[in-house]
Amino acid sequence: MSEKFSFSLNATDGAARSGVISTPRGDIRTPAFMPVGTAATVKAMMPESVRATGADILLGNTYHLMLRPTAERIERLGGLHKFMNWERPILTDSGGFQVMSLAELRKLTEEGVTFKSHIDGSKHALTPERSMEIQRMLGSDIVMCFDECPALPADRARIAESMRLSMRWADRSREAFGDRPGHALFGIMQGGLEQDLREESAKALTDIGFDGYAVGGLAVGEGQEAMFGCLDYAPGYLPVDKPRYLMGVGKPDDIVGAVKRGIDMMDCVLPSRSGRTGQVFTRRGVINIKNARHAEDPRPLDAECSCPACSSYSRAYLHHVFRANEMISGMLLTWHNLHYFQDIMQGMRDAIAAGSFDAWEAEFHAGRAQGDIAPI
Amino acid sequence: MSEKFSFSLNATDGAARSGVISTPRGDIRTPAFMPVGTAATVKAMMPESVRATGADILLGNTYHLMLRPTAERIERLGGLHKFMNWERPILTDSGGFQVMSLAELRKLTEEGVTFKSHIDGSKHALTPERSMEIQRMLGSDIVMCFDECPALPADRARIAESMRLSMRWADRSREAFGDRPGHALFGIMQGGLEQDLREESAKALTDIGFDGYAVGGLAVGEGQEAMFGCLDYAPGYLPVDKPRYLMGVGKPDDIVGAVKRGIDMMDCVLPSRSGRTGQVFTRRGVINIKNARHAEDPRPLDAECSCPACSSYSRAYLHHVFRANEMISGMLLTWHNLHYFQDIMQGMRDAIAAGSFDAWEAEFHAGRAQGDIAPI
Repeated sequence: MSEKFSFSLNATDGAARSGVISTPRGDIRTPAFMPVGTAATVKAMMPESVRATGADILLGNTYHLMLRPTAERIERLGGLHKFMNWERPILTDSGGFQVMSLAELRKLTEEGVTFKSHIDGSKHALTPERSMEIQRMLGSDIVMCFDECPALPADRARIAESMRLSMRWADRSREAFGDRPGHALFGIMQGGLEQDLREESAKALTDIGFDGYAVGGLAVGEGQEAMFGCLDYAPGYLPVDKPRYLMGVGKPDDIVGAVKRGIDMMDCVLPSRSGRTGQVFTRRGVINIKNARHAEDPRPLDAECSCPACSSYSRAYLHHVFRANEMISGMLLTWHNLHYFQDIMQGMRDAIAAGSFDAWEAEFHAGRAQGDIAPI
Repeated sequence: MSEKFSFSLNATDGAARSGVISTPRGDIRTPAFMPVGTAATVKAMMPESVRATGADILLGNTYHLMLRPTAERIERLGGLHKFMNWERPILTDSGGFQVMSLAELRKLTEEGVTFKSHIDGSKHALTPERSMEIQRMLGSDIVMCFDECPALPADRARIAESMRLSMRWADRSREAFGDRPGHALFGIMQGGLEQDLREESAKALTDIGFDGYAVGGLAVGEGQEAMFGCLDYAPGYLPVDKPRYLMGVGKPDDIVGAVKRGIDMMDCVLPSRSGRTGQVFTRRGVINIKNARHAEDPRPLDAECSCPACSSYSRAYLHHVFRANEMISGMLLTWHNLHYFQDIMQGMRDAIAAGSFDAWEAEFHAGRAQGDIAPI
């Protein structure tokens, strides 16, 4: 355990990197996938099960937690780690993105944003200063700057204006965060798909100086090709010696493509949300467990997977409990999906260390190209 | 592990008994509480977690499983134990009770009952012979006779007629079950609250001869006082050297009162169902976790409980996740309730062995009389 927040890069293979983020609450092996614990729980999972999948860090959502049960209450109860029984690192987002996607009656000004809760209609405000305060009350290990993230496509003027506002907010976030040893503050690059705006944003952030840097404003409707196009240059504008975090990504092939382009950290609700809707990610692509072809199939979801769903249950069972709307369906499929995502991360970490990322990636794509095993 | 099904009585204290039912799939310590795994899952629980609460045996529902995924499919997949990943003993009910409570267009004859599925309206029939066949296909360790169970109150003529039909069905069940070493068939006493009919039923069953005997037709609306009134005499009509099973019971004080009167086994959906609705059983009575008094309470549900919900989470957290409709709420509260029910069973087993059941019972009631801890 480190007393400070630090990042060490252990190996590179092309643009892909592997390393370790050290924090007082434990190490985070990179590239890292962060399961999302929206409302102080990774849905359908016990925290010890999340850990068993290989997760070193969780993401918590400031927007959700500030509304319910409130950051003030969580602070009085000893912080988010204790509250949700997860003693390892937690990264919290700033709340800005979800205000824009979930809240009602949003009003954006230079100062920040006001909105009404989607839960009970109560009025709230978020500013860079308030976001820093909330994330401090939660006890977050990695705090994100408060930013604005426009949906894509958007015109260049809107992207530029929004990015510059986010850079002024980044400055205010840095100021409000202050000096908190053992805790990190990450800046968030914006600029949409405009390369010069991305470069301008990166410069603004590095001038301020952060413990890590996120690539924001992607995975918001632009498609994988456009996202990869941006990732071909955007990480290169960021300091080599700091972690790079791609927010809200993604599908397995998005994750692999992002790591290939120099990303160290990602988060996404996809494995947990899909687990509750019967969508399963495997080495051979995507399965929908509710499909009748699985009804009497005694085989596991993924013969190479060591998760509990694959070790102890047939597709037939998983089909049955999904159809019967049993909670164990979401529990087992979420566990499998999170386990598989962590397997991908471990595979990439090992491949980068061995200098064999390209071969690993080829095998990853070849497995998916096979498609699911033939019906019995 | 025994090769055969057997029961050994180890201690008695008044009418209360403790012992062990031995089966090829493991021992069942009695008095035993059996969690209900209706549709091949104890709702919200992984089977290894159910085991961790102290359960030696589960109950499966013939009615639910015959409709979905069907007993034929479960047999083709290797039986219910393998299907649901529970290798220890399973008791299955006969389906009769749930046909009466859940199915549509029921028609009862001497032969059996026809009905339409509550899931998809499909037509089905259950007879003693068909119930034995289904329970054999499921691979049940303890098979229940097919019987009819009238709701109470009911007039004496109806109770008598129904009981005698059930006794004819018990005879057919015994015949259809045949000789299956390592598997047990239990008869079910009926007769409502009529002592002479209970005695007549017990005699009919013991004349046929079973591996164990259930007291059926209670916990169907008669109230605790009437149920205990019946249990003051009914177990005494059954053989001393066979296990006695009270079906569908119950609340903690029902369970304690039943064991005191000579019952060895019980099952009930209460701890799991209540866990999903926020009702929590503790040594100091019942808590409703959605109550606002728990919103900022850092204390565990039950300070004396060693389950994960009590060891690692505050009432405030459990209140939050219940309010936020998070799956972990049902997962943790079900775990606690099942753990507490098993703690009661272990407490009674130890007390009976020590000859101190009355003192244990007095402490049990004194704890409940205290009521929940005062709000902070």
